[in-house]
Amino acid sequence: MIHCRKRQDHSPFLAAMDLEGCLIPEIWIALAQKTGISELKLTTRDIQNYDELMQKRISILNKHCLLLRDIQEVIRSLEPLEGAIEFLKWIRQRVPLVILSDTFYQFSMPLMEKLGFPSLFCHTLKVNSNGQIEGYHSRCMDSKAEAVKGLKQNGFSVISIGDSHNDLRMLRAANYGILLHPPPSIEENFRDFPSCHSYEELQKELREIWKESPSIKNLFPL
Amino acid sequence: MIHCRKRQDHSPFLAAMDLEGCLIPEIWIALAQKTGISELKLTTRDIQNYDELMQKRISILNKHCLLLRDIQEVIRSLEPLEGAIEFLKWIRQRVPLVILSDTFYQFSMPLMEKLGFPSLFCHTLKVNSNGQIEGYHSRCMDSKAEAVKGLKQNGFSVISIGDSHNDLRMLRAANYGILLHPPPSIEENFRDFPSCHSYEELQKELREIWKESPSIKNLFPL
Repeated sequence: MIHCRKRQDHSPFLAAMDLEGCLIPEIWIALAQKTGISELKLTTRDIQNYDELMQKRISILNKHCLLLRDIQEVIRSLEPLEGAIEFLKWIRQRVPLVILSDTFYQFSMPLMEKLGFPSLFCHTLKVNSNGQIEGYHSRCMDSKAEAVKGLKQNGFSVISIGDSHNDLRMLRAANYGILLHPPPSIEENFRDFPSCHSYEELQKELREIWKESPSIKNLFPL
Repeated sequence: MIHCRKRQDHSPFLAAMDLEGCLIPEIWIALAQKTGISELKLTTRDIQNYDELMQKRISILNKHCLLLRDIQEVIRSLEPLEGAIEFLKWIRQRVPLVILSDTFYQFSMPLMEKLGFPSLFCHTLKVNSNGQIEGYHSRCMDSKAEAVKGLKQNGFSVISIGDSHNDLRMLRAANYGILLHPPPSIEENFRDFPSCHSYEELQKELREIWKESPSIKNLFPL
């Protein structure tokens, strides 16, 4: 197991974890399935420019007269991935956790309740007074990796956990980067990150990282 | 009501809140009361140098043969302030929350469960293999204000909430600073911050700040 950077002695750990694909289903895929609008399955594999992709998604929603509240209703019906709730409880008993995601507050908040309201760092939709989605606002450029850098600068040993292309920069920015449920292409190309295919494997990986941590071993058996 | 800095349009809000005196009792005061060791009531009013104060506290604990597990047992018996659990639930439904505190993970984690495991940014005790407290490690210099600055740089409009001297720099660093349960001396000397004496007053103040926020008004009635 190779880690990018060793932690500084005594700096407390913090986990920075992706949301979609790691704790909940991919929201746009789920929306496509639940609404039957297959165009909503478009990803950055189809349209590489993220802004162009988002404008396309928004125009599809508007073409089908889907308002924010309709989408929230669909999202509210989604369930966290199997084992996610128990895993979150386990990790939050041990280290502070922030969720770093490229989703939008207005989409994800209905699901946050099911996850016990972890701190979610994501983006904002622009919605008009009729409830129609008109656009979006990114919180900042490269927001996941920049959040990790800021938390490191604030004295944390950051463990980043993610599954896909938009997580690689935050995994690299962290003291420890771990892939969870990665697609085969990512697992094969980024072998410098340990790769976990279940929450049990992830717990094992985390225990290995934590085994010398004074702030954790005084609290719980690893 | 005067605020230090206006938020940038569309940047999502994040609440950065102090712990002791805002959500739970002051831990050292409670320890003094529960153990009957009145020396533990020493604060920065008695010994201004924080490091000197901490060394003194640790030597008092050791003189009385109090191990970390004894102290954790006392802390586990404490209860959050009245209304704190309900307030936390309310605020976490609306904005991401981080707790910025000068306490130690080994002290506070038993209480975090009662608060629903919000993300806690604090410091670490150095504990030897017998369970005796030998020292402490600060996460970084000026950790509360630095955390707020980092979160602002990551695109958030930060609302800081605190009660005492060690919170003033984080209140000033934030986009909005609010005093909660401040002692009269602080309230009188820092009138540029709105001052709340109950969670109801704090909710009113937050509603006022949030009233134009797109990410909140699409989710909940303010």
